[in-house]
Amino acid sequence: MKLIHPPSSADIIAASDLIRPYIETTPVLHSESLDQLSGSRLFFKCENFQKAGAFKTRGATHALLCLEEKERSLGVVTHSSGNHAQALARAARIFGIPAYIVMPQNAPKVKVEAVKAYGGKITFCKPTLADREETADNIVRQTGATLVHPYNNYDIIAGQATVCHEILQQGVKPDFVLCPVGGGGLLSGTLLSAHYFSPHTKTIACEPESANDTLQSIEQGQWMPVKNPDTIADGLRTSLGALTWPIIKQYVHQVVTVTDREIIYAMHRIWERMKIIIEPSAAVPVAVALKRLPALKDKTVAVILSGGNTNLDQLPWQ
Amino acid sequence: MKLIHPPSSADIIAASDLIRPYIETTPVLHSESLDQLSGSRLFFKCENFQKAGAFKTRGATHALLCLEEKERSLGVVTHSSGNHAQALARAARIFGIPAYIVMPQNAPKVKVEAVKAYGGKITFCKPTLADREETADNIVRQTGATLVHPYNNYDIIAGQATVCHEILQQGVKPDFVLCPVGGGGLLSGTLLSAHYFSPHTKTIACEPESANDTLQSIEQGQWMPVKNPDTIADGLRTSLGALTWPIIKQYVHQVVTVTDREIIYAMHRIWERMKIIIEPSAAVPVAVALKRLPALKDKTVAVILSGGNTNLDQLPWQ
Repeated sequence: MKLIHPPSSADIIAASDLIRPYIETTPVLHSESLDQLSGSRLFFKCENFQKAGAFKTRGATHALLCLEEKERSLGVVTHSSGNHAQALARAARIFGIPAYIVMPQNAPKVKVEAVKAYGGKITFCKPTLADREETADNIVRQTGATLVHPYNNYDIIAGQATVCHEILQQGVKPDFVLCPVGGGGLLSGTLLSAHYFSPHTKTIACEPESANDTLQSIEQGQWMPVKNPDTIADGLRTSLGALTWPIIKQYVHQVVTVTDREIIYAMHRIWERMKIIIEPSAAVPVAVALKRLPALKDKTVAVILSGGNTNLDQLPWQ
Repeated sequence: MKLIHPPSSADIIAASDLIRPYIETTPVLHSESLDQLSGSRLFFKCENFQKAGAFKTRGATHALLCLEEKERSLGVVTHSSGNHAQALARAARIFGIPAYIVMPQNAPKVKVEAVKAYGGKITFCKPTLADREETADNIVRQTGATLVHPYNNYDIIAGQATVCHEILQQGVKPDFVLCPVGGGGLLSGTLLSAHYFSPHTKTIACEPESANDTLQSIEQGQWMPVKNPDTIADGLRTSLGALTWPIIKQYVHQVVTVTDREIIYAMHRIWERMKIIIEPSAAVPVAVALKRLPALKDKTVAVILSGGNTNLDQLPWQ
């Protein structure tokens, strides 16, 4: 059953139970070294260890589970080419249905290969948003498949909300949650889970300075999308959507932005000290933790490491 | 109390209890993707997450704990410049005693910085083994500090034996253990733990083809050290020692060698699929697992990921 309103606490608990057999319950890691660098007690939620390498697996799997069986059997479509595409292709394979992935002709080979590895059916298009949307619409018409938007979809939001729900279930009692924001699926889900299950916890949206539509929107009090932002955090170049923005506006405690230089430094520190691989987007909340904001001093802070899919042949600090 | 004989089962259990407050109980990870690639059920013991980034912390900490208090207060010396040096420096700092580390003038900056970060007192020497040993001997004479050999020391062997003991405690019931071999401290400890605590488990020594002194020694039935071997697995360039060789000769099931190319491929696969960072030496047993040896097909195989200290600015596949 598809959600037609922002997920309730019961919806998030239900999503969590529904997707559990198909996903990893990812560990929460702690590092003395990062505690010293940040001045906070950091608890890292490792969605880089999630199936298909990112939290997107939660939302995509949940969205598929919410489709009627007949509808689901016709397959799913998306024109995202990043972690959502891999997650959707993986989820579709589990249920034995086709996943049609629309990708621009110039998509990096590593992303094309990753989607292929999960059995996604790729259709290439011109590298414009208009052509991507048109190509996806054509596929919907021809196949009857369902378009699954990467974040502007309440089933997706409920799935992403299970990250924060799981952190709390794992016994962390955070004063703050640091969450990256791109389209806002993970952030809006996190805000709802924190609101329902740990009302004293404040959620900070962590955003690249050059893709700061969330900051601008909050400051202006209205939705302010940005066009073609340039940041190394490739998962966070999208702007908030019509469904995520109202939730974020209502519940977010603060938006903090970081530069690409800070993101790269944070990513390197996590690799070096914790021996785990995170992608640039996941380093954004780490970069916020390393700013040593006075409000976070000595506080218990959950940091969502959103994913680990990065090109190992081109490291940003080289 | 220092061990003057190969560790007994009681010695290993005692070592495990002694060092526990000072080390990480590292996780055992599993990966469907690596299972598919190998054809075995692999359980990865993540000593890359160990304090100071490698299993060496176990042996070094245990060796310090075995010194009489008066002896310990004068400090410790080593002329290893790798993970053992970092581990010894860290352990010495915990006990508030000096760690004198002799390093060749041409040691990589990253290693020098790592030892400094743990408070080690570095003495540089000429890049010959003779000069390293002489420099270390001079320090022993001048300071009364104790030389702690990286592997030719039963207290070290008992400490490294806790890795395999811990794997078994964590509920893994391996048919095989894949263990890297350089000087043989980890391998001899692993052989003893497997022998005492899981007699049906067979331990395979995993060795770089170009540093194959263990294979040669086993084949010839006598200790055959190799000089200046050239392999990317920098932790495995040393030859077996007088104390490790007899244990290895008695208990090892098989020695399997792998090329540097296989090591690099295995390292890349672990980074890419498991999102964790391992060093080249730790990739050696992974490379053996990926050889798809008929004997390992569908078997439960523990793979010791020995460490995660590698230069993030120079990746071997680039």
